[in-house]
Amino acid sequence: MTNKSRTRGSTCMILGGYMRGTALYGPYDVRSEYVPDPTIIEPTDAIIRLSATCICGSDLWPYRGVDPITRPVPMGHEYVGIVEEVGSAVKIIKPGQFVVGSFFASDNTCPICQAGYQTSCVNRQPGAPTGAQAEYARIPLADGTLVPTPDLPPADLIPDLLAASDVLGTGWFAAVAAEVGPGKTVAVVGDGAVGLLAVLSARQMGAERIILIGSRHPQRQALAQEFGATDVIEARGDEAIEMLKELTDGLGVHSTIEAVGTQESMMQAIRATRPGGHVGVVGVLHDVAIPGREFFFSHVHLHGGPAPVRRFLPELINLIWQRVIKPGKVFDLTLPLEQVAEGYRAMDERRAIKVLLKP
Amino acid sequence: MTNKSRTRGSTCMILGGYMRGTALYGPYDVRSEYVPDPTIIEPTDAIIRLSATCICGSDLWPYRGVDPITRPVPMGHEYVGIVEEVGSAVKIIKPGQFVVGSFFASDNTCPICQAGYQTSCVNRQPGAPTGAQAEYARIPLADGTLVPTPDLPPADLIPDLLAASDVLGTGWFAAVAAEVGPGKTVAVVGDGAVGLLAVLSARQMGAERIILIGSRHPQRQALAQEFGATDVIEARGDEAIEMLKELTDGLGVHSTIEAVGTQESMMQAIRATRPGGHVGVVGVLHDVAIPGREFFFSHVHLHGGPAPVRRFLPELINLIWQRVIKPGKVFDLTLPLEQVAEGYRAMDERRAIKVLLKP
Repeated sequence: MTNKSRTRGSTCMILGGYMRGTALYGPYDVRSEYVPDPTIIEPTDAIIRLSATCICGSDLWPYRGVDPITRPVPMGHEYVGIVEEVGSAVKIIKPGQFVVGSFFASDNTCPICQAGYQTSCVNRQPGAPTGAQAEYARIPLADGTLVPTPDLPPADLIPDLLAASDVLGTGWFAAVAAEVGPGKTVAVVGDGAVGLLAVLSARQMGAERIILIGSRHPQRQALAQEFGATDVIEARGDEAIEMLKELTDGLGVHSTIEAVGTQESMMQAIRATRPGGHVGVVGVLHDVAIPGREFFFSHVHLHGGPAPVRRFLPELINLIWQRVIKPGKVFDLTLPLEQVAEGYRAMDERRAIKVLLKP
Repeated sequence: MTNKSRTRGSTCMILGGYMRGTALYGPYDVRSEYVPDPTIIEPTDAIIRLSATCICGSDLWPYRGVDPITRPVPMGHEYVGIVEEVGSAVKIIKPGQFVVGSFFASDNTCPICQAGYQTSCVNRQPGAPTGAQAEYARIPLADGTLVPTPDLPPADLIPDLLAASDVLGTGWFAAVAAEVGPGKTVAVVGDGAVGLLAVLSARQMGAERIILIGSRHPQRQALAQEFGATDVIEARGDEAIEMLKELTDGLGVHSTIEAVGTQESMMQAIRATRPGGHVGVVGVLHDVAIPGREFFFSHVHLHGGPAPVRRFLPELINLIWQRVIKPGKVFDLTLPLEQVAEGYRAMDERRAIKVLLKP
């Protein structure tokens, strides 16, 4: 550890070399606690000081016990911040840069990365193995993973850049996977932050009509409309599909974004889509089985998975920097990092769309 | 019925107005029998005199009792022949033309057809509702469904044109769905006629390497190699995937064609494919459930369904007419139509790849 990094842990000087982090101990038991400062382990690592972090919809799976854990797990994988220190093999990223990363670290040079699937990089690692709901984070494969902003950002852009780190990148990938484009009609299943930012993404890509399905939450509907949704169908299941068909000459939409990850939402996405259309799947599928025969005769394209956010970061940072898009609007609750447990509760109870945490 | 059509049924003049057809009565009970000549029912119909017909791998599903039937069913959906008669609303197709059609009739004008998914046409009907393993067939929506050849074909091209009607069109669609292209490595699961013609299609589309998986049949392997396969992996299951990974720097192939339709073959196709790659699914999926989580993290694209052969017919007829491709080589047994039952047995027992029937 360098002298410089020894000065970290500024909110807890008395402990020295410790920082505030977040760990999940079991269902509904998330704790803010002091943990050792992260250090460079591999020469390709960087240490960043987080300017902002947040809670992800996917954090709620282990929080609710759906993805069981066997020991306390450091939480958080969305981050923006300033590079404090880099390992000896880091050539591109420099201390002092403001950077955006994402939930998987990737070398950005292997054939899979080069094809744009950095989240399946052959050297893939967790993006913030020390947990990003913290003051500092160790980021592996820094040169492949992190993208610097043109300059230090003004404070009001920080939530937008933070959104790019996961939810915007994921919504954007969903729209790309669903082959959204000019003149197309798009359905979005899911009114969480990813679904809402998929609406924004679809609008940016020129979609003619964007229909949010199954949302019964006035605040989320309003934000969807602000982001570009043209229609909201509150119904779910077969009723929603019938209404959607009525809106599309009986054919279904060209592109559907699945941003929930349940059997019901997946089937709704397939059934919403016309033959030859595309379903972009970014809801992490839990206990889902896609019936082969229905998929086959639906004639839809299915594509998705963990979003290769890295592919889109340069473009997304630019759109944010130019103030073309304002994805940070999905953060409707801001809390100090130490109140992370309240943040989880607010998201679990759907009192908040997405919680930003200030270290 | 016009006077002209009354003269049909020439192989059975004594009965008059009857023709030889084929019906399935139950598992393993397929019969050649005399049935009434088909007649124009809708003004958009055509009646064709079949020059050749054949038995499809998909005919074996009901033949084996996997797709149960409740009454005798006329069989056959692959056909080429000469137009005998057209309904009053048929404007493009003319009596005397040699035509190629396929297993679904489509108007070729609805938005789904215009998008290239004629097999999901909003006015879709069976392509040969009277059965094409027969001397004559009624073809609905003739103008949308049938494609004439430039002239009456020489006899040696008839098997090739017949192959275009289904198996070539299906193999071609599989390769398109799998986004085969120059420089790509392609895996083909299935050594039936569709799998073999998917090899031919992949070669035509410029694939660099074409790997046939799971084939243990020397004659089929040889034909695959003649059509352009560069490698054959006889192994199946996990062992086949391991060998495939060894051939592809551990990454898997860019494009995989699934031409079987079972759970095992479907999983093999997904596992053979690298992240970001494409799986083209043309084996009619029977009792298949695609596990959501594995699909999600595989990062593959899935697309397929009943091949919209109509989309490709003009191009395929041209390639055959120019003698660029010779797909009719998949017919390794030719029988007179009345021996159709022996044809089913030969395919069921895998003694023949594909059986051509001469009316």
